[in-house]
Amino acid sequence: MLYLVGLGLGDAEDITVKGLQAVRRCRRVYLEAYTSVLTVGKEALEEFYGKELILADREMVEQEADSLLKEADVCDVAFLVVGDPFGATTHSDLVLRAVKLGIPYKVIHNASIMNAVGCCGLQLYNFGETVSIVFWTDTWKPESFFDKIEKNRQNGMHTLCLLGRKIYEPPRYMSVNQAAEQLLAIIQKRRLQGEKPEITENTICVGLARVGALDEKIASGTLQQMSTVELGAPLHSLIVTGTMHPLELEMLKLFSVDSSSFENNACQRTT
Amino acid sequence: MLYLVGLGLGDAEDITVKGLQAVRRCRRVYLEAYTSVLTVGKEALEEFYGKELILADREMVEQEADSLLKEADVCDVAFLVVGDPFGATTHSDLVLRAVKLGIPYKVIHNASIMNAVGCCGLQLYNFGETVSIVFWTDTWKPESFFDKIEKNRQNGMHTLCLLGRKIYEPPRYMSVNQAAEQLLAIIQKRRLQGEKPEITENTICVGLARVGALDEKIASGTLQQMSTVELGAPLHSLIVTGTMHPLELEMLKLFSVDSSSFENNACQRTT
Repeated sequence: MLYLVGLGLGDAEDITVKGLQAVRRCRRVYLEAYTSVLTVGKEALEEFYGKELILADREMVEQEADSLLKEADVCDVAFLVVGDPFGATTHSDLVLRAVKLGIPYKVIHNASIMNAVGCCGLQLYNFGETVSIVFWTDTWKPESFFDKIEKNRQNGMHTLCLLGRKIYEPPRYMSVNQAAEQLLAIIQKRRLQGEKPEITENTICVGLARVGALDEKIASGTLQQMSTVELGAPLHSLIVTGTMHPLELEMLKLFSVDSSSFENNACQRTT
Repeated sequence: MLYLVGLGLGDAEDITVKGLQAVRRCRRVYLEAYTSVLTVGKEALEEFYGKELILADREMVEQEADSLLKEADVCDVAFLVVGDPFGATTHSDLVLRAVKLGIPYKVIHNASIMNAVGCCGLQLYNFGETVSIVFWTDTWKPESFFDKIEKNRQNGMHTLCLLGRKIYEPPRYMSVNQAAEQLLAIIQKRRLQGEKPEITENTICVGLARVGALDEKIASGTLQQMSTVELGAPLHSLIVTGTMHPLELEMLKLFSVDSSSFENNACQRTT
């Protein structure tokens, strides 16, 4: 059996009881090392699980999948994924390969950023398409994510922006500040082109850091405020709000950088 | 401290290790009994947690919140929610009331249907707005969910349809068959009105039952096929696909009712 086990978002104890039981009974346990930052080290996980972990980077999963799946038809192998195995990144490749080899698989779900962002009080129902904001280079400054955020907002929907990373050693992760600055730069540029973007400096946004971890931090305020808010270590995510229900607004105020930011936000959802 | 603890989607063992530790140290433990169906009984949870549970229906949470939160500033109280505490339903009311009373709170996340649907192979990234399909009555046949599904599909996005329930004793939950029949009825009606809906009998859909539980069932096929597919006991969810990436399509074929349903689905996402 191949177990795809979600580890959740915080530390070693965020694994489910079912997941922990599966891990402890597996002959080999792989830890996905390429789509997410871990808030605790591999060693902390190994100690808690009582198992040695094999780090699996993208290359290994793609090119050595057969060795990863070796004998998984006669013994148990686990593949551990931060968040949910089918959260922000999918592991369809591995599942399809297992199925072709006649290896049964089981998914043990957990929280992922895609649902845990609900903790800020915005309803998951009211989110449109999720976008990724990537690091700009001198020559590559894509803006497609901005158009999607605009479209969501025009439809009254919130947008979860997953923030990119640079593949360095160690990798660098985009902060809410950097994401906000890129959005502000696009707004400026479009105004110079004679457009009038729906999203402005005063659009209410939410910055989230280390969601689900003990030192989680949430800050709400204007897009302008997001460019300077202090949220600390990665991972960060940014939400650009659409139309807000009064209860959503009241929740966001719990996390406000400056309560006056909300005074002019009269645009509320009433149903 | 007020702990809002997600129980995940399957059985007692889907709670996280952190959640279980919190529950075991709480003086009172409430179990939310109104937004989700449990796949195991209250007794099974009580035995596993080693704690007595107090069932909290919506009326209790809304009208007796103060007794629920009583002494939570000096002792620990847990509120258990199937799925994630901020998944398909939000518990903002309770959080806001706790904050007003000066009671600190902590959220222990878990999987919810909003992210666990990724197990069918469709990327969560590619989902638009989530909709709820409600039971029609003789005099009330809303169609607003259909317009949202159409809009998502026009934008190439998949739609997760959460299926309604009737407040009976015991409550009745909508099946994928019933949801598909309502969608087919709307398509027929609109054609009679001279419209040409984007969604047809042949649109590829995914029916999911008891996601995350041991007897989870996933079936993919046309909307027409969804009206007769056998998925067993609740809870059910339905996905209406948008534009599919080849890898998404390959995953869906693992669950196909009839592989020929996919033959004419040439409309694929290429990036």
